[in-house]
Amino acid sequence: MNIGIDIGGTNIGAGLLDDNLDFIYKTEFPTENEKGYEFVEAKIINIIEEMILIAEKNGENIESLGIGIPGIADNSGDNIVFCPNLHWRNKPMGINLRKRFAIDINIENDATLAGIAENVLGVSRGYDNSVFITLGTGVGAGIIIDGKMYKGAHGVASELGHLIVGENFYDCNCGKNGCLETFASSTAIEKYMLREIDKGRYETKLFNRINKIEEVNAEHIFQCAAEGDELCNKAIDRMVKYLTIGITNIINILDPGIIVLGGGVSKAGSFLIDRIENLIPNYILFDDMEYADIRLAKLGNDAGIIGAAMLNQYK
Amino acid sequence: MNIGIDIGGTNIGAGLLDDNLDFIYKTEFPTENEKGYEFVEAKIINIIEEMILIAEKNGENIESLGIGIPGIADNSGDNIVFCPNLHWRNKPMGINLRKRFAIDINIENDATLAGIAENVLGVSRGYDNSVFITLGTGVGAGIIIDGKMYKGAHGVASELGHLIVGENFYDCNCGKNGCLETFASSTAIEKYMLREIDKGRYETKLFNRINKIEEVNAEHIFQCAAEGDELCNKAIDRMVKYLTIGITNIINILDPGIIVLGGGVSKAGSFLIDRIENLIPNYILFDDMEYADIRLAKLGNDAGIIGAAMLNQYK
Repeated sequence: MNIGIDIGGTNIGAGLLDDNLDFIYKTEFPTENEKGYEFVEAKIINIIEEMILIAEKNGENIESLGIGIPGIADNSGDNIVFCPNLHWRNKPMGINLRKRFAIDINIENDATLAGIAENVLGVSRGYDNSVFITLGTGVGAGIIIDGKMYKGAHGVASELGHLIVGENFYDCNCGKNGCLETFASSTAIEKYMLREIDKGRYETKLFNRINKIEEVNAEHIFQCAAEGDELCNKAIDRMVKYLTIGITNIINILDPGIIVLGGGVSKAGSFLIDRIENLIPNYILFDDMEYADIRLAKLGNDAGIIGAAMLNQYK
Repeated sequence: MNIGIDIGGTNIGAGLLDDNLDFIYKTEFPTENEKGYEFVEAKIINIIEEMILIAEKNGENIESLGIGIPGIADNSGDNIVFCPNLHWRNKPMGINLRKRFAIDINIENDATLAGIAENVLGVSRGYDNSVFITLGTGVGAGIIIDGKMYKGAHGVASELGHLIVGENFYDCNCGKNGCLETFASSTAIEKYMLREIDKGRYETKLFNRINKIEEVNAEHIFQCAAEGDELCNKAIDRMVKYLTIGITNIINILDPGIIVLGGGVSKAGSFLIDRIENLIPNYILFDDMEYADIRLAKLGNDAGIIGAAMLNQYK
């Protein structure tokens, strides 16, 4: 059996999976990162101990523990190098967990784990080369080449959220201007809509759904766009334009067999995918040649846990 | 022995190489593409026959023939799919040559071949993952992953010249706006300079070097910039800015060990490399982590022929 843990900014998901990658046990609890790194690490240690007990009750051993983080770890898996949204720098999670648990422990970027999970069990199964893009409050990605996680020479590959794809009216958290994340995340859609409303563009159905400006969110904007609201469609069209530039940049560099879209924004489903597919021919180089399929992720929130649980096999 | 042929828009280079990849024979002749594809193919057949005779005189057989093209061939190497600058579409070069010569024949993109040559014999030797970028009248590239040419799922990978990295005042030949090629090729530098001059900015030392406006070229612009000319430095700074955005986009996706710059524009040498290296920290995501070395290509014009001659081993 293997344990997978997926550390997010809001919640931590954890699961115990058997050798067929079926869940034996699954749980979720708040990260409470505001209480400090040590507090979060202690919670993770507790849940690991709990799952080891469950495995023992089933007469099974734990072969490996995989941990997904919203950032990067060093190649040894000893230290978390940087998780921007958790404000973690140089945290010795691997060192500390290995002191306590005599099992194979690995740490990997969460989007990379979701990418390998989709490649083994999900929508990109059967493709040698795939790119998984998670569109949430930020934009992350995982690259699979020849069925393996692609990590690059220094462990900083697949940061597709920080591809520069244009010029934007606000800077990215990373300090740069024009990052894909500032066009294609839920945050980006919301910021653009708030700016448009601030310009005095109140003729939107959005206000039938919300009571105050603070309630503007990407989900409402997508819903109103689907109902034909002009301003919301303008916001979505802009998001789709730059996401398509990002996707075609990836096609022009990596030419994967499939590009998988996951994360909260991807819940817009075919409404989003259809627009991207319609726009790709405008940006693709060889429009008479085959290029990557664009598909929605299949495993949902579990992808990170599943990817973490299989990490020792695919690292 | 192996034959390598590098088909360019202006010239065709051809070489006979021994098993140590040393040149036994090397020649260059004009492409004369205006006389039609069949004419060019006949010239290539002639030079192949000539080199087979040279090998025979040395008591050696030809093991393989590799051909580099400024475009893409299908995976079988039967047909050239598209060479934009030669206006070739669906030319059966592989089929025709295989009818005539009973040797292993392969066709590959010229920048990819230069990339593998640099990886085996040149500046990127010893690196598992490298990206070769050729900055000439256009911008091409070759990606090496795990020591092998990376070709993608449909053979359309590594088209870095068509990464969209901003918005430009003119459209690319491919029909899109903002392609790296329209910022970082010699053509791009020249077009920008001519536009600035056209705006009435005559206060440049460029006119000490040339007699008429048609003589403006990237080499002169680099030379005047190195001498401190303000307008020429403005043109080079703009080129370096967008080239650095392209390079950091590649780092953020692929995180190669090294990025190699070749082609005519790279003859600007350390004047160019130093500016890029100074600017990279402004665009890189993890500026406290190691990232790709940026180096000049070593093999010069021969890289394409050498890569073609080793194609059967590295395809």
